[in-house]
Amino acid sequence: MTVRFGLLGAGRIGKVHAKAVSSNPAARLVAVADAFEKAATDLATAYGCEVRSIEQILASADIDAVVICTPTDTHADLIEQFSKAGKAIFCEKPIDLDVERVKSCLKVVDGSGGTLMVGFNRRFDPHFMAVKAVIDKGEIGAVEMVQITSRDPGAPPVDYIKRSGGIFRDMTIHDFDMARFLLGEEIDTVSAYASNLVDKAIGEAGDFDSVSVILTTASGKHATISNSRRATYGYDQRIEVHGSKGAVSAENQRPVSIEVANASGYTRPPLHDFFMTRYTEAYAREISTFIDAVESKSPASPSGLDGLIALALAEAALKSATENRVVKVSEITGALADKTVFQGR
Amino acid sequence: MTVRFGLLGAGRIGKVHAKAVSSNPAARLVAVADAFEKAATDLATAYGCEVRSIEQILASADIDAVVICTPTDTHADLIEQFSKAGKAIFCEKPIDLDVERVKSCLKVVDGSGGTLMVGFNRRFDPHFMAVKAVIDKGEIGAVEMVQITSRDPGAPPVDYIKRSGGIFRDMTIHDFDMARFLLGEEIDTVSAYASNLVDKAIGEAGDFDSVSVILTTASGKHATISNSRRATYGYDQRIEVHGSKGAVSAENQRPVSIEVANASGYTRPPLHDFFMTRYTEAYAREISTFIDAVESKSPASPSGLDGLIALALAEAALKSATENRVVKVSEITGALADKTVFQGR
Amino acid sequence: MTVRFGLLGAGRIGKVHAKAVSSNPAARLVAVADAFEKAATDLATAYGCEVRSIEQILASADIDAVVICTPTDTHADLIEQFSKAGKAIFCEKPIDLDVERVKSCLKVVDGSGGTLMVGFNRRFDPHFMAVKAVIDKGEIGAVEMVQITSRDPGAPPVDYIKRSGGIFRDMTIHDFDMARFLLGEEIDTVSAYASNLVDKAIGEAGDFDSVSVILTTASGKHATISNSRRATYGYDQRIEVHGSKGAVSAENQRPVSIEVANASGYTRPPLHDFFMTRYTEAYAREISTFIDAVESKSPASPSGLDGLIALALAEAALKSATENRVVKVSEITGALADKTVFQGR
Amino acid sequence: MTVRFGLLGAGRIGKVHAKAVSSNPAARLVAVADAFEKAATDLATAYGCEVRSIEQILASADIDAVVICTPTDTHADLIEQFSKAGKAIFCEKPIDLDVERVKSCLKVVDGSGGTLMVGFNRRFDPHFMAVKAVIDKGEIGAVEMVQITSRDPGAPPVDYIKRSGGIFRDMTIHDFDMARFLLGEEIDTVSAYASNLVDKAIGEAGDFDSVSVILTTASGKHATISNSRRATYGYDQRIEVHGSKGAVSAENQRPVSIEVANASGYTRPPLHDFFMTRYTEAYAREISTFIDAVESKSPASPSGLDGLIALALAEAALKSATENRVVKVSEITGALADKTVFQGR
Repeated sequence: MTVRFGLLGAGRIGKVHAKAVSSNPAARLVAVADAFEKAATDLATAYGCEVRSIEQILASADIDAVVICTPTDTHADLIEQFSKAGKAIFCEKPIDLDVERVKSCLKVVDGSGGTLMVGFNRRFDPHFMAVKAVIDKGEIGAVEMVQITSRDPGAPPVDYIKRSGGIFRDMTIHDFDMARFLLGEEIDTVSAYASNLVDKAIGEAGDFDSVSVILTTASGKHATISNSRRATYGYDQRIEVHGSKGAVSAENQRPVSIEVANASGYTRPPLHDFFMTRYTEAYAREISTFIDAVESKSPASPSGLDGLIALALAEAALKSATENRVVKVSEITGALADKTVFQGR
Repeated sequence: MTVRFGLLGAGRIGKVHAKAVSSNPAARLVAVADAFEKAATDLATAYGCEVRSIEQILASADIDAVVICTPTDTHADLIEQFSKAGKAIFCEKPIDLDVERVKSCLKVVDGSGGTLMVGFNRRFDPHFMAVKAVIDKGEIGAVEMVQITSRDPGAPPVDYIKRSGGIFRDMTIHDFDMARFLLGEEIDTVSAYASNLVDKAIGEAGDFDSVSVILTTASGKHATISNSRRATYGYDQRIEVHGSKGAVSAENQRPVSIEVANASGYTRPPLHDFFMTRYTEAYAREISTFIDAVESKSPASPSGLDGLIALALAEAALKSATENRVVKVSEITGALADKTVFQGR
Repeated sequence: MTVRFGLLGAGRIGKVHAKAVSSNPAARLVAVADAFEKAATDLATAYGCEVRSIEQILASADIDAVVICTPTDTHADLIEQFSKAGKAIFCEKPIDLDVERVKSCLKVVDGSGGTLMVGFNRRFDPHFMAVKAVIDKGEIGAVEMVQITSRDPGAPPVDYIKRSGGIFRDMTIHDFDMARFLLGEEIDTVSAYASNLVDKAIGEAGDFDSVSVILTTASGKHATISNSRRATYGYDQRIEVHGSKGAVSAENQRPVSIEVANASGYTRPPLHDFFMTRYTEAYAREISTFIDAVESKSPASPSGLDGLIALALAEAALKSATENRVVKVSEITGALADKTVFQGR
Repeated sequence: MTVRFGLLGAGRIGKVHAKAVSSNPAARLVAVADAFEKAATDLATAYGCEVRSIEQILASADIDAVVICTPTDTHADLIEQFSKAGKAIFCEKPIDLDVERVKSCLKVVDGSGGTLMVGFNRRFDPHFMAVKAVIDKGEIGAVEMVQITSRDPGAPPVDYIKRSGGIFRDMTIHDFDMARFLLGEEIDTVSAYASNLVDKAIGEAGDFDSVSVILTTASGKHATISNSRRATYGYDQRIEVHGSKGAVSAENQRPVSIEVANASGYTRPPLHDFFMTRYTEAYAREISTFIDAVESKSPASPSGLDGLIALALAEAALKSATENRVVKVSEITGALADKTVFQGR
């Protein structure tokens, strides 16, 4: 079976997914939609697919699954529409910036019984997958402490910042998901500190650019996250996990690994300069996993619930940073926590 | 001039300092005192010095300086006595487990005008010194975020734990001092989380074995500290500092740096298994710095005030962890903060 | 312009090139030929191209270029035929196991004036390309000494060994090409030592499995090569180049770069286990470079002459190892050397 | 028992040994002799020992052992004299620049039955010792190939070069000894290439500055050595050993191991800039091993014979480089080889 795709949104991340879908032998990119016609036409030409409107894709019998890469504020509505139409859905994070809206959206998806996968690409990075595999094999014993460092090479435009929902919902959300994923236990409390060290304009836009977070679980595990919108040496993405028997870590990646030695010392080149080159392989594996779920009609992971919980953690972190106190995640998720299921852990 | 030393306490750390003093061409170890006579005699034989009582050392005209390595609860009293007697003093951390007692002790020292240096050995590690030198040369721009990982190979005996003042005063205190030292700005708030993951007996003794801390400053800088009483792979001591222009880090040290490659992969040996082998060079440089201060009659650094502030941070962290809230350091230090001087920063 | 390809040979390396051609937006795989029909059909199905005979491809007006991946003893004949037919040719190394046959073949190519590129894939590895770029920018000054380590994870079947022309022509030939490429000067003498340490059967087949070589140039530069048919830890491919101002090196590559730490030490996974995964990117860049040459009708590099010289070095090395003496390359190349041109160096 | 030392020669390497002897609790430095009186007096003052003439030391009943650090051309005579006088002898390499003179000297030592140890300090480097321990434990199976890289930060003065016996006897000799030590089998043939790439003055003095060597054994093992008198990035000292089951390597050492990351990449500081700082620990362990041999009246290793064989390899290499041919070691050692014993391998 070949899974036939419609792509909603032909922007930067849309192109990444178009390439992943096209390169996958089990998939075919049938159509692309974008409000900006030239973007759709260009992508359609590059990948040999049609241009259709979102409405047409919704009604297309020759499309099994959609990848949603439109602006965030359209995600929840599109998920609901395409879920009701019986299409499998891969949606870029976040589902929505508002936790309540995500809850109501997921209820619709639950009702339709369709496949929904949320785009936390890092879970599919080969190096992080290898870290997870080491944990799952029991090589480091029971997981106890996780340390995540995630620093962007540079801040996005302030215009983007304003629509992003803030650093916790836009950037740290990936680290929240990874922390949950690696700890293997739900987060209980969030202590976050956030400040403006990189760019005053970000502060004037009501956001932060430098973040430190402690996450804790009911059994006493903890995770720390360190974020910055600046890293002169490239896209800094490190994870280390400590367990009762040892530790496992994933180092940074660079495009070329050479070393020049001279009187100044030993110098290796900077890291990847962007998430798209750093996570090329992760995006390919992510779509491949989605295709497997569609083909086998099994639930996709990370699920809509994973998306919801990561967003709730972002909201808890924002509350913690602005109210200067430790925040219980249950303050945000309310009655939701009991629905959480950790499959296969 | 040769600085003539008396050593108070011939235990584990006393031996480390005896060796450092004896190996230093500018110093001479004249006498050692220890409540346990055999310990004193053995050390005296090994280093060719006399055994004297603490009272005799206090009255010895042929002794210029003392190294205090006795149990913690004797430190403050000894500092006051030897300060009044005009001896230069090197005291192992902490001065006392109680902040008020340290304050009153430092008042006595201030009155006597003598030299007091507190044993934060990590400041003198060649690798951490090189990190500090990079910062001071401006190579990474303005310091913004510090990450310290400090994990012991194994927990000390519960008996020791009970007398230690708890993990924050016994272990994290070194990281508090390093965070201040590297941030170059006083700490404003402390958020600490602590749990028992390593050994239940530690919890039953009223202490923690696993700690995550966020420290912040008034200008918005932050530091995170990650501590554990367990590290199967050796004594884990890492520091990284991020600034506006770049970052600098110090990696772990191991006794031998070889690598074995086979079908299981590439394996390097574990790290040092203890602080004494890891910080051999640091202890030598620490005593050397103290000797320089004594010879030049200049103030020693880290000072009594540095010891007091690190202790206050430990107390703030304990308060944060037990009361589950963000703690202002001023809650602990009270009117003290305005006395702080950061020389040469 | 799209370069239209015929593929001769659908074996292991044929598949590698089929993938590289198909993934390249400037190329199209039109047809494949293979003596073993199922191999051709399978590949044609996988990549959506036709099956044709070699003769049909030779006569196809809709084919601009061929990739020759047939058995070595057919290479020279095919090159001559396709060259005369006006097709651009990419041929896997070696052109032939016999230096005289290569010479006569290249004369035919010269007469036809077509494009011939020889498959020394390592020149296109991103890491080795970065090493070359550092040299070309003058960052290490004048190149003086080169060290190449190249160890296979395991020996090929003895059956393959027998047809391979021996380790120098089959394996070391890549290192000879890289040594010339990096030294930027022709090799003058070869001293080789070869023995059987890995597998007696290889010795019984008249070949060696462990090789050390010194190459020298007229101006006094040198290169050493270390080869083995065994490396339990994976495909070991390292290069270091020393110049008057410094050195540059390329480290080994592994599929995942994680590290597990426990009481046994710090372990990273083994290297790639094969040349196809290790040099995936190199094969893609190699074909891309060939396409550029075809499109711009410029001479391809590495050229037929590069292939000839590398083969001559292999022959000199074999002579050195078996006669136990230093061999002048001119003993092999005769009057050929003066034709050598180092373009773009 | 305390071994009482006389030191012959108070120059650069004499000071290194004076420090090693003085710091060793099982030894005492009794007297120092030097033709240059001030050198002797200064060293005597620094280490609290007497100044005596060589003749006085020879006759001193309170001296058990001597360390010979005088100019090379005096070594053999002094060894003979002190051996006859019943003193244990530690002699800096080489015993003499002439193989025949070394042979006759060793005959005298054999006759006297005393302890003679030759100063190949690298065998005592903790990292290289760990490499040897891995081999001896069988972790990499049977040793097959050894690669040694040894590059000096800079060339010594031409004046020194002239008296040194040339690069093979002065510098490569250490690598010859390590190759034998690690291969665990006598060297059979030597192929050496040497050129002048660093400094013309060295060539004008009749010596080389850049060397590549292949060593082989009767069973087919090989070792390569790469030497240069220039390394802008510090004292480059690497070893890797490949066996039937895996490989083990020792990396370079640097005084501080920090890393600075910025837009130019990741930079670690240069290596040690000199053998004295690089091999501090090796010199201490070397003397400690000598003291153990003296105390236990057991044969010392590396022995006089080890010194002789390393010198013979240097002579073979020189012959190979100048006559441009493979040289059998037996051409140099003659009937000597059969005396070789590899204890404890």
